[in-house]
Amino acid sequence: MNEDYLITPWEVKGEIDYRRLIENFGLSIFKKLPEEFYKEILFRRKIIFAHRDIERIFNAIKNKEKFVMMTGLMPTGKFHLGHTLIVKQMIFYQKLGAKIYIAVADLEAYNTRKQSLEKSRKIAEEYIANYFALGLKEENCDIYFQSKRSKDSKKSNAYYSLQNLFARYVSFNELKSVYGEITPGKILSSLLQASDMIHPQLPEFEGQCPVVIPVGIDQDPHLRVARDIIQKIKNPKFIQISSTYNLFLPGLKGGKMSASDPYSYISLDDSEKVIEEKIYKHAFSGGKPTAEEQRKFGGDPDIDVCFQYLRMLLEENDEKLEEIFKDYKSGKMLTRELKDYTIKKIKFFLTEHRKKIKDAKKIAKKFI
Amino acid sequence: MNEDYLITPWEVKGEIDYRRLIENFGLSIFKKLPEEFYKEILFRRKIIFAHRDIERIFNAIKNKEKFVMMTGLMPTGKFHLGHTLIVKQMIFYQKLGAKIYIAVADLEAYNTRKQSLEKSRKIAEEYIANYFALGLKEENCDIYFQSKRSKDSKKSNAYYSLQNLFARYVSFNELKSVYGEITPGKILSSLLQASDMIHPQLPEFEGQCPVVIPVGIDQDPHLRVARDIIQKIKNPKFIQISSTYNLFLPGLKGGKMSASDPYSYISLDDSEKVIEEKIYKHAFSGGKPTAEEQRKFGGDPDIDVCFQYLRMLLEENDEKLEEIFKDYKSGKMLTRELKDYTIKKIKFFLTEHRKKIKDAKKIAKKFI
Repeated sequence: MNEDYLITPWEVKGEIDYRRLIENFGLSIFKKLPEEFYKEILFRRKIIFAHRDIERIFNAIKNKEKFVMMTGLMPTGKFHLGHTLIVKQMIFYQKLGAKIYIAVADLEAYNTRKQSLEKSRKIAEEYIANYFALGLKEENCDIYFQSKRSKDSKKSNAYYSLQNLFARYVSFNELKSVYGEITPGKILSSLLQASDMIHPQLPEFEGQCPVVIPVGIDQDPHLRVARDIIQKIKNPKFIQISSTYNLFLPGLKGGKMSASDPYSYISLDDSEKVIEEKIYKHAFSGGKPTAEEQRKFGGDPDIDVCFQYLRMLLEENDEKLEEIFKDYKSGKMLTRELKDYTIKKIKFFLTEHRKKIKDAKKIAKKFI
Repeated sequence: MNEDYLITPWEVKGEIDYRRLIENFGLSIFKKLPEEFYKEILFRRKIIFAHRDIERIFNAIKNKEKFVMMTGLMPTGKFHLGHTLIVKQMIFYQKLGAKIYIAVADLEAYNTRKQSLEKSRKIAEEYIANYFALGLKEENCDIYFQSKRSKDSKKSNAYYSLQNLFARYVSFNELKSVYGEITPGKILSSLLQASDMIHPQLPEFEGQCPVVIPVGIDQDPHLRVARDIIQKIKNPKFIQISSTYNLFLPGLKGGKMSASDPYSYISLDDSEKVIEEKIYKHAFSGGKPTAEEQRKFGGDPDIDVCFQYLRMLLEENDEKLEEIFKDYKSGKMLTRELKDYTIKKIKFFLTEHRKKIKDAKKIAKKFI
């Protein structure tokens, strides 16, 4: 892999060429989707664009066998619209019968971002409340902090021991080739993440079973390390993990929606006024400079941030989306109209969400 | 430090020059021993020859304040006479009021010696039984396996989190300068050992208090890493750890008594016949080739392995030891006589020990 094109969980440099990533990382594209998956726009519209070993999950669902969906949460910055992509996937798999494991990566935040455990706890509480408000059910969920795995000591001992046992199966050269520059903090984080991903299969937890880990492409290095460990470790034995890869929801100005730049994201507690300002003034548009030009030459929905929000998240109706695509491309629909429609959709989404957030906060407290 | 003179916890190369180590490692020699310490031959005879920050422990004992003695056990090979030096120190500090922490380094054995946790458990059981047979009391002892810290999940979570938090405070260069060549397994082991040494001061355990860690000189690298972390970490705060350094009990052929070479050690379950054979045939002697020469020129007790066993472990009576020293050096005492006396002492020691081992095994089972 090129130095100027390094994707690590700690930084994403340059523009992302997904086709190239699929090749470089050895991912697979979806051949045929089971009906349940096709119903979900993230799969149908290829927002989730690649996978490793997803067949194992398709089979578990088909045969009504136990399986786990595992994900992590980096407790930094505000919870924003971009985060909802992963939450949709949690809810999706939960409805299909998965046990949901969510790791709050407070030890990783401590080691790689110098953030205190106290601050991580506060931020995580907001994130988790949002999960429940968005529709995650508290039943069949195991949400935990890396620094406090469980109230059951057998589980805690098993989880942390696994991190230590894994150290025997990785070399510096492997870690360097996967992560680029490494530090002791990154090594510990990587092995603890491997334990996050693999420990659900320990006898103290679910026992051997398929585990799916939906991620953004920047998290694949962690998955490669974990997969490699599973191949090497003989006792205990684990079923190889499955993973899927979703596009990033673009930031308002294009690029990644980043929690550290408020003008790149829409927060779920932004006021209606702030949302209007962010969309009207800051959302990158595929439209032409003037209405006349737009009418004449049409806009480019593929680079228009609002259109991407509709496609990836807000517009469930394929026919409506197609209509907007055509109208915007042909010049029948102006940028202002597209922005109006997107704002209406965001407002509706947030109004629904706000009705639920108060109760959700109470549920979240139970997990803190 | 010279490459040909590298002391790491994983190998001891070449002969050991203790004076040079004291200088290189920045250890202190004992200025004045409190009476309780002077009574113990290990201190009085300078078998424990150096320390770091021992004053803190002297003060705690003087002021009857809480303190901890922490030690680790590498569960490999047979329990032998050389191991009793550390057990004597456990018992010594326990009588002085210390809470005793003993870590079974099964995760370290897994990562640095590729030994399974099951095998470590078996060997540790034998070691721990020997501790109790030698006089350790089960009260006020916290004996644990690194892979299963506690039945109290708060304690387990705190212990393992500490290992992870520590990663932020060490760099590769530091670890390399302390350990020489490093691997991910050694890094994890080093940080877990740091947690072993420091976690007794967590609020979930004893809270801030002085901790003394008696070691052989080969373990000092771990101590330097732990001390450095304590200096850097601000939250939680820890009192700097104290440590003492003892000579190694020499092997039968000289050098280190090594659990991997049966003709270097005397095991506590060697039969009387085996002991006689080992001492008469294999124990390195400071005597002359013939009785005539010995009578004429005298022997050298300083290099005589039997004399060292008497000095370091078996002969509590200073006057008797002095008499043997003089008689052996002058030629009045022959090698055979010194060996006879040593065998008598070992047999007495083991006879006493064997009376207690059966009950001790029962107590050990409680800790497994």
